[in-house]
Formats: sequence, structure tokens, C-alpha cells
Amino acid sequence: MGRVVSSASMSLDGFVASPDNDPGALFDWYEAGDVEIVNAGDLPPFHLTRASADYWQGWVQELGCLVVGRLLFDITDGWKGEHPLGVPFVVLAHEVPTDWAWAHTGNGHFVTDGIEAAIARAQELAGDRSVGVAAGTVAGQALAAGLLDEVAIDLVPIVLGEGHAYFADVDPAAVRLGDPTTVIPSARVTHLRYPVLR
Amino acid sequence: MGRVVSSASMSLDGFVASPDNDPGALFDWYEAGDVEIVNAGDLPPFHLTRASADYWQGWVQELGCLVVGRLLFDITDGWKGEHPLGVPFVVLAHEVPTDWAWAHTGNGHFVTDGIEAAIARAQELAGDRSVGVAAGTVAGQALAAGLLDEVAIDLVPIVLGEGHAYFADVDPAAVRLGDPTTVIPSARVTHLRYPVLR
Repeated sequence: MGRVVSSASMSLDGFVASPDNDPGALFDWYEAGDVEIVNAGDLPPFHLTRASADYWQGWVQELGCLVVGRLLFDITDGWKGEHPLGVPFVVLAHEVPTDWAWAHTGNGHFVTDGIEAAIARAQELAGDRSVGVAAGTVAGQALAAGLLDEVAIDLVPIVLGEGHAYFADVDPAAVRLGDPTTVIPSARVTHLRYPVLR
Repeated sequence: MGRVVSSASMSLDGFVASPDNDPGALFDWYEAGDVEIVNAGDLPPFHLTRASADYWQGWVQELGCLVVGRLLFDITDGWKGEHPLGVPFVVLAHEVPTDWAWAHTGNGHFVTDGIEAAIARAQELAGDRSVGVAAGTVAGQALAAGLLDEVAIDLVPIVLGEGHAYFADVDPAAVRLGDPTTVIPSARVTHLRYPVLR
């Protein structure tokens, strides 16, 4: 089975979005270079530095499936059935939506019985590839349940003051991380990957 | 005049101390290697990795004076008049203490008329060297007043959940940082220095 890795852009004070879910300057690094990256689906391309592009391509090649929360699913309308990273996604939800217009794509999967089942389903779909876990409530639950292998942080030199924490609703004492295995400085971001200690 | 640089160890969620002012695992990197660093004053030596020791020595050579808040002064009893870094320090206080037992050392200076006066006094004492500003309320005030040139963060792979923020009481929109000029991975810490954009 592949690794389970949470991932998000994060401010210096630990937030992955403002209170109203606006990423704002957290995503400036997606247009900080001249290497064009093409999305799956209908989102326009974005433009990274060479360092960020190399890191990004490695992540895309590694990734087999994503686990996201219902809020992100609703905000994006499930990426109209095609996530920009071109992988299937598992939505951790209280109920399976019956009126999602893009269910026919077959790329969205719904799990209603908890984070362990969601990650298990994602691992089935990912095969040997990694499962990416959205930061916030889902990453917090995965970490608390001992299901995370790594924490990937795209550290952005801004301060938000308030917002959604990378690890929501988790006992800080449970967050035992090793030294980063990846430290890549770039423009408007430093890419970091930390192993979770068990 | 030298540069004005805030500095502290910081958790991944942006705290420089727990609510009860215990640094806890924030300071694990001070004993994560085998390069002995001798303190000024009567504190015992500590032990850094080679990478952290090189960074530390550069900071010590650069530093000419510190600006700290009254809380830190009280907690440490003004380091008994001799800061471990061997430099004079300016205490931003509401009143000058009349009963400080170590006033005779001449290393502690008190400024009661605000952050600008405190940093100006520290720059006099520092000459061409840098002024170090303690994270928290003092760094927040210095940043808000446009007095900070750089932000140094020793980023520690822990989550505290609550505590004292690196930049206390500051409008996040005022925190405009450039990309880090220093990124040094080490054991239990990554050393980062960000320029403040004006």
C-alpha cells in the first residue's frame, strides 16, 4: 500500500484558509514562476518556479487518490467530477449526495462510516500510489487515528491571524513529527515534508 | 545602523511558548547535536548540530543588543544582568524597576516610552551590529511600527494548539514578508530568515 500524506499550503501561523475559506495569498506560489502546469479537468493552467514545478510533478506522479471533506467537496462542486490532479477522490460525508450532477464521471466516491473507512477505500483506489489527505478536519481525524504517514506543508510567508487550522480538532500532544525529509525553498513558498512518528 | 531582526523558536502553528510560558519541546534543538556552545553568564552550555551551531555562531557575531518585554525580563530575572548571548538588553517596560538586584552590571537598560524609543536605544548600544527583538508582543509592536527588517524563525516540528503567538496583537495584513534568505534544515528545527517588505 502507498503512503498516506496530508498536504496543504499553510501560513506561518498554521492556517490553510481564512475563516471564509478564501485561500488568498496562500496560493500566490501557484503563479510565481514560468513553468506551465496543465490541470486535469477544466481549470486553467498555472505557472510555477522550476523548483516548485519539480516538486509538484513528483507529487502528481506519486499520488493515486485523495481524501477530502464534505465542505471542500461542496465548495468545488466536486471539481465537476474531475479533480485538477487527475485522480479519483473519496469524500468523507455524513450522507451520500443523491443530486450530484457529476456522479456519472465515476471519479467521486463517498464514505459515510468514518475516517478509517475513507482512507481504506482511498488506498484500494490508489493501489501502490500515495493517498493525499486534505488538511483541516480530515487531516486532524486521520492524524488522531494514527493513519497519517507524512505531513506535507507548503509554507507561505504570510500571517492570517485566524482561519482554518492545518490540523483541526486534534490534541497537539498527538502530533509527533520527525525532521523534514524535504526542504525546498521556492518563490512565495517553502516545500516541507515531515514524517509522522508513531 | 545595524538591522533589526525578530527571532524565536516557533511551532508549526505559530506559537513561541505555551500559555504558561513553558517552551517545552520548542527548545529540543538546543540539545540535538554534539557541538558545545558556551553561554555568557551562568547558564550551562548547550549542544547543537553542526548546521545549527554554524547558524547560531553567525547570529551571535551579528548581534549587538536585544530588545525584550517586561514579562521575559521578569521570568528570567533579567538573566541576572548577563544575557546568555553576551550582549546588553533593552527592556520595554511601563516603569523602571527600582529593586532589580543586577542593575550594577550595567547590561540592562529600561525604556518606558514605547517601541520606537526602545529600538532606537538598542541601536545606539548595538552600533553597526544587529538588534534582536524578542518574539511576541514586542515583535508585534515593532512590526506594526515598521521597525523590523527581518523575521528569523527557528521552525520546530511540533504543534502547540494554543499559546503566545510569534506576532502578538498585530494586524496580519501588515505582515508582508519576502521569500526566506536563509533556509537551513537541522535536527528538531529548520532555521528560516525572512525579509520584511515595506
